[in-house]
Amino acid sequence: MHKITLLIHCEDQPNIIASVTNFMATNKGNIVYIDQHVDREQNIFFMRLECEFKSDAFSIEKFRNIFKEVLVEKFQLKWKMYAADKKPRMALFVSKYDHCLYDILGRYNSGELFLEIPFILSNHAHLKSIADSFNIPFYHVPVTKDTKYEAEREQLKLLESYTIDFVVLARYMQIVSNLLIDKYPNKIINIHHSFLPAFVGAKPYHSAYKRGVKIIGATSHYITEELDAGPIIEQDVTHVSHSHSINDLISKGRDLEKIVLSNAIKLHANRKVMVFNNKTVIFS
Amino acid sequence: MHKITLLIHCEDQPNIIASVTNFMATNKGNIVYIDQHVDREQNIFFMRLECEFKSDAFSIEKFRNIFKEVLVEKFQLKWKMYAADKKPRMALFVSKYDHCLYDILGRYNSGELFLEIPFILSNHAHLKSIADSFNIPFYHVPVTKDTKYEAEREQLKLLESYTIDFVVLARYMQIVSNLLIDKYPNKIINIHHSFLPAFVGAKPYHSAYKRGVKIIGATSHYITEELDAGPIIEQDVTHVSHSHSINDLISKGRDLEKIVLSNAIKLHANRKVMVFNNKTVIFS
Amino acid sequence: MHKITLLIHCEDQPNIIASVTNFMATNKGNIVYIDQHVDREQNIFFMRLECEFKSDAFSIEKFRNIFKEVLVEKFQLKWKMYAADKKPRMALFVSKYDHCLYDILGRYNSGELFLEIPFILSNHAHLKSIADSFNIPFYHVPVTKDTKYEAEREQLKLLESYTIDFVVLARYMQIVSNLLIDKYPNKIINIHHSFLPAFVGAKPYHSAYKRGVKIIGATSHYITEELDAGPIIEQDVTHVSHSHSINDLISKGRDLEKIVLSNAIKLHANRKVMVFNNKTVIFS
Amino acid sequence: MHKITLLIHCEDQPNIIASVTNFMATNKGNIVYIDQHVDREQNIFFMRLECEFKSDAFSIEKFRNIFKEVLVEKFQLKWKMYAADKKPRMALFVSKYDHCLYDILGRYNSGELFLEIPFILSNHAHLKSIADSFNIPFYHVPVTKDTKYEAEREQLKLLESYTIDFVVLARYMQIVSNLLIDKYPNKIINIHHSFLPAFVGAKPYHSAYKRGVKIIGATSHYITEELDAGPIIEQDVTHVSHSHSINDLISKGRDLEKIVLSNAIKLHANRKVMVFNNKTVIFS
Repeated sequence: MHKITLLIHCEDQPNIIASVTNFMATNKGNIVYIDQHVDREQNIFFMRLECEFKSDAFSIEKFRNIFKEVLVEKFQLKWKMYAADKKPRMALFVSKYDHCLYDILGRYNSGELFLEIPFILSNHAHLKSIADSFNIPFYHVPVTKDTKYEAEREQLKLLESYTIDFVVLARYMQIVSNLLIDKYPNKIINIHHSFLPAFVGAKPYHSAYKRGVKIIGATSHYITEELDAGPIIEQDVTHVSHSHSINDLISKGRDLEKIVLSNAIKLHANRKVMVFNNKTVIFS
Repeated sequence: MHKITLLIHCEDQPNIIASVTNFMATNKGNIVYIDQHVDREQNIFFMRLECEFKSDAFSIEKFRNIFKEVLVEKFQLKWKMYAADKKPRMALFVSKYDHCLYDILGRYNSGELFLEIPFILSNHAHLKSIADSFNIPFYHVPVTKDTKYEAEREQLKLLESYTIDFVVLARYMQIVSNLLIDKYPNKIINIHHSFLPAFVGAKPYHSAYKRGVKIIGATSHYITEELDAGPIIEQDVTHVSHSHSINDLISKGRDLEKIVLSNAIKLHANRKVMVFNNKTVIFS
Repeated sequence: MHKITLLIHCEDQPNIIASVTNFMATNKGNIVYIDQHVDREQNIFFMRLECEFKSDAFSIEKFRNIFKEVLVEKFQLKWKMYAADKKPRMALFVSKYDHCLYDILGRYNSGELFLEIPFILSNHAHLKSIADSFNIPFYHVPVTKDTKYEAEREQLKLLESYTIDFVVLARYMQIVSNLLIDKYPNKIINIHHSFLPAFVGAKPYHSAYKRGVKIIGATSHYITEELDAGPIIEQDVTHVSHSHSINDLISKGRDLEKIVLSNAIKLHANRKVMVFNNKTVIFS
Repeated sequence: MHKITLLIHCEDQPNIIASVTNFMATNKGNIVYIDQHVDREQNIFFMRLECEFKSDAFSIEKFRNIFKEVLVEKFQLKWKMYAADKKPRMALFVSKYDHCLYDILGRYNSGELFLEIPFILSNHAHLKSIADSFNIPFYHVPVTKDTKYEAEREQLKLLESYTIDFVVLARYMQIVSNLLIDKYPNKIINIHHSFLPAFVGAKPYHSAYKRGVKIIGATSHYITEELDAGPIIEQDVTHVSHSHSINDLISKGRDLEKIVLSNAIKLHANRKVMVFNNKTVIFS
C-alpha cells in the first residue's frame, strides 16, 4: 500500500475539487482524507488530500509526472506531493535554555513525533550533555558579530550534508540571516515568547510585566526577513496577575513555549501547514 | 445561483469521495466546501459538502431524486440535503431563567443567527414581556405532574402548526418525554449546567461546590431518553477556586451556559452537526 | 451592623499590616477579609480590607477622621474607605452596537451587579428603545468634530447632576478628552476589542485578520490620555483559525467583549481594583 | 533574617486576624504576606501568613511554643508552622510512563521547584536510566498481588529513612493502600488523567472517547481511601473533537498531566494548600 499527501493552492475556480478527486479515482487512488479552504479576500483555493494506492507498481515519481501533466498547468497549481510514510528530517538549533529541548526530545523518544532529528546545533556548548544522553550528534558553532557569516555558512553545510527538511529554533536566541532563510523559506520554525504581534523583539516578558497585561502568550512562526513578523503557525496564552513577578512570567511562559513549539512542529512535520501571503492555512 | 448543503454517512468504502464529487461535477455543480471524517473504530464515513448550481432550471427536488437514484442505494448512504438559503425554524422553550433567552434574542436581533424563531414557549408566564419586546409570539403552557401528557400534546401541536425544524431548551428545567423526542430525534438541543458526564441531573453547581472542583463547565447536547446522556455538541469550562460560593458558581456558570448554547445552536442551524451512535461529528 | 471596605497603598515598611489590623481591633471592628500585595520592583504596599462594626453608634465619617489621625500621616497612606453597602453609581455610554448594552442590562436586571445605573448616554439615538424597555433614562448627545467640546461639557453636567461614581464606555466609539478624564481619573472603563497592546486603535479585528493571528482578544482598561494605553483591568482571548473571516472575528469577539467588560465592571464596582503607575492590582 | 510560613484554620470567630497579626508584631515579626478565607457554609476560618524576624536570637522551636501558649488553645487552632527556607523532601513514584518524570526532573534541574528529590521509586526498572542521568537514587520495588503488603512496607521504610515530607505519584499506576495513606495524610499527590469527578478509575481516555466529550482534562489530588475521590489541588482541560482518536486523546492528555501535576507539586511544596473536609483552600 502506498500513500501520498498532496497540498495544493491556486486561484479559486470552478471544478477544481472534482477535477482533483476524479484524477485520483482515474489513477486507482482511494482518497482517505480531503479538506479545503477558500480565502475569499484573495480568491485563493487551498486543498490537502491523502490518497492510497494499492498497486505494487505505484511509483510516486511517475505519479508526480502524471499529476503535473494533467492538472498542474491546467489549474496553474502550486503544489507539493509527499510519500506519507517518509519522515521529514528536522535540525534543532538551541542556545542555553533547555526546556524546549527536553520537551522535544522527550516526545521524540516516546514516538510522538513523526520526524527524524539527525543533529542538534548550538552557539554554546551548555546543552551537549543532553544531546549525548539522547544519542543525537551535537555541533557547537559559536556565533559572534564578526563570525556570523562564517557560522551560518557552516550551518548551511551541515543542513545540506544531513539533507535536512526543516529547522526548529528552540529558543536559539540568535537572529537568522537571509543566507539561511532564502534556502529554507517557510521551513525555519521559531518560538517567540510573547503573543505576537504584541512585544516583538527582545525581553517580551519584561515588556509584558511593565505594561501590566493580564495574559501572556507564546507564538510559533516561520522565520522571515522581518523580525518576529513571519507567518504564525500556533499561539497559546495563560492568565497572569499583579502578583506575578517577571521571574514568574518567565517560568509560566516556559510551559507555553514548550507546548506551542511542539504543536507547531507536529503540524509542520505532518504536512498540515500551507503558507500564502505571510499567513498560514492549517489543516488540523 | 442555487446552493445545497449535503450531509452523508455510510460504511467506509473506496471511491466514495470521488464518486460524490464526480456526481456533482456531472450535474454541473461546483463544490465550494468539502470536509470528511472517517470513524476508524466503527468504520463509518461522514461527509459534508456545499455545492453551487448556476442553472436557473435547477430544482432541489429533482436533484434529490437523481442523487437518490445514482448514489444512495449504491453506497447505502444515510443523507440529508438542504437548500442552503433556507433558514431552519427554531422553537425556544424557557422557564424562569432569562440569561440564555436574552443572549439568544440579542444575537437573533443582530442577524448573527441563521434561523427563524416563530415562537417562544414556557411553563411559566415570567418571561412573556421579554418575548413581547422582541415581537415574538409567546405561549404559556403550564406543566404539572398530572397535566404533563396534555401539555406535551399541546407543545407538539404548536411545533407542527409552526412547521418547526428544531427545538432549543434554554434552561427549560423540565424533563422532556419520548412523545417529543421520538418526533424530533437529535433535534432537541439542551443546555446542561455542568461538564458532562460529571454532575448529571439536578443542582450540578451544588455538587461541583461540594466536590471542590477547580473548573466548572456547561454542555450542550441533544436530548435522548436517558437523562443528560445524549450526543454532546459543545462544551466549555471556566476556572473557579475555593473562594467562590455556590452563588458565584451559578453566576459564572451563566456566562458559560449562554455561550455554549448559542454555539450549539449556530452549529445545528448551519447544518454542521452529524450524529452517529450517540456521538457527534462537527464540521466547523 | 456596619461594614466598610478599605483600600490603601503606601511605601512598603515594617508593621504596616499589624498596625492596620490592630487599629481595627482597637476600634471594635472585626476584620472579615484581608488581602495584600507588595510590588517589590517599586517597593509599594497595597492592601484591601473589609471590617464589620456592631455598634449602632458607628459612623463612617467619624471613623474616617480617626483613621486619618492615627494611621494616614504616620504611614503616608493613600487610601479610600467605602461604606460596603453603598452601591456605586455608573453611567453607561454607548453608540450603535448593542451587544455590551444588552449584556450589562441583563445582568443588572437579574441583580448580578452591585451598582446603580442612573442613566444611559449615546451620541446616536439607535439604542433608545433598549434603554426604555429597561426603564432607564436615555440621553442623546450627538458629537461632531465641531461640537465635541460642548458635548463633553453636557456629559460632564449630567455626570455631576446624577452624582455618578464611574463611567463605562460600552463600545462608545468616541475618543474621550481630558475634560472628562481629569474629572474621573481611573474611573472611566473602556472595552477595547483586541488583546492590548496588540492592535491599538481603530479596526483591530481587521488588523488581526491581516496578521493571521491564531487567537483574538478583548481588553478592558481605564481611559488615560494616551489611546488604549491605560491600566488594564481584565483580558480574555479565544482561538481562531484561517477559516474565520473578518466578520467571524467580529462575531466571536463580541462574546469576549461582553464578558471582559462585565467582569471589569464587577471588579470596579466591588472596589477590588487599585491603580498605581498605570498598572492595576486586582484583589479578586 | 528568619522567615516563617504559618497555616491555620479554626472555627470562624471575631478578632482572629487582629489577634494573630498583633501576636506577630508583639514578637517583633514583620508580616510580609497575609491571605485568608472563610468557608461560610462550614463556618471555618483559614489563614496563610509569612512573617520575617530580624533578631539573630530567633528560634522557630521557641516561637512555636510561644505561639501554642498564646494563641492555639484560645482559638482552638489547627496549625502548621514552617521555616520558609527549608525545602520539603519529595519522593517520586513512577511506573513505565516517562512524560511526567521528564517534566518534573527538567524543572527540578532548572531550579524552578522549591524542593529536594532524595529518591525515585518504581515497580518497574524501565525508567532507571532517566533517574541515573539526573543523578538521583532509583529504587526498583516490584509489586504483585501477593507481594503488595511487603512492597508497601519497603516503600514505607524508604520514606522514613529518607525523612520524606510528601510523595508524588507521577503516573505510578498502582493503587496505594491505607498503610501509606495513614502515614502521609494529604501528603500523597496523584495525577489522574481525567477531569474528575468524570471518568473515575481505569482508562479514562477510552471512556472520554466513548462518551464523545468535546473537552478532556487532568486532575491532581491528594490520595484518600476512596479511589480518585480525594481533595482536588489543580485541574486543567483542553478541547478535542470527533477527529481525535483515543491515541490522540492520550497524547494531548500527556501535556495536561505534566502541567497539572507540576503546578500541584509547586503549590504543595510552597505550603499554599490547606485541606478541610476533603476540599482544598489554595492560597496562590
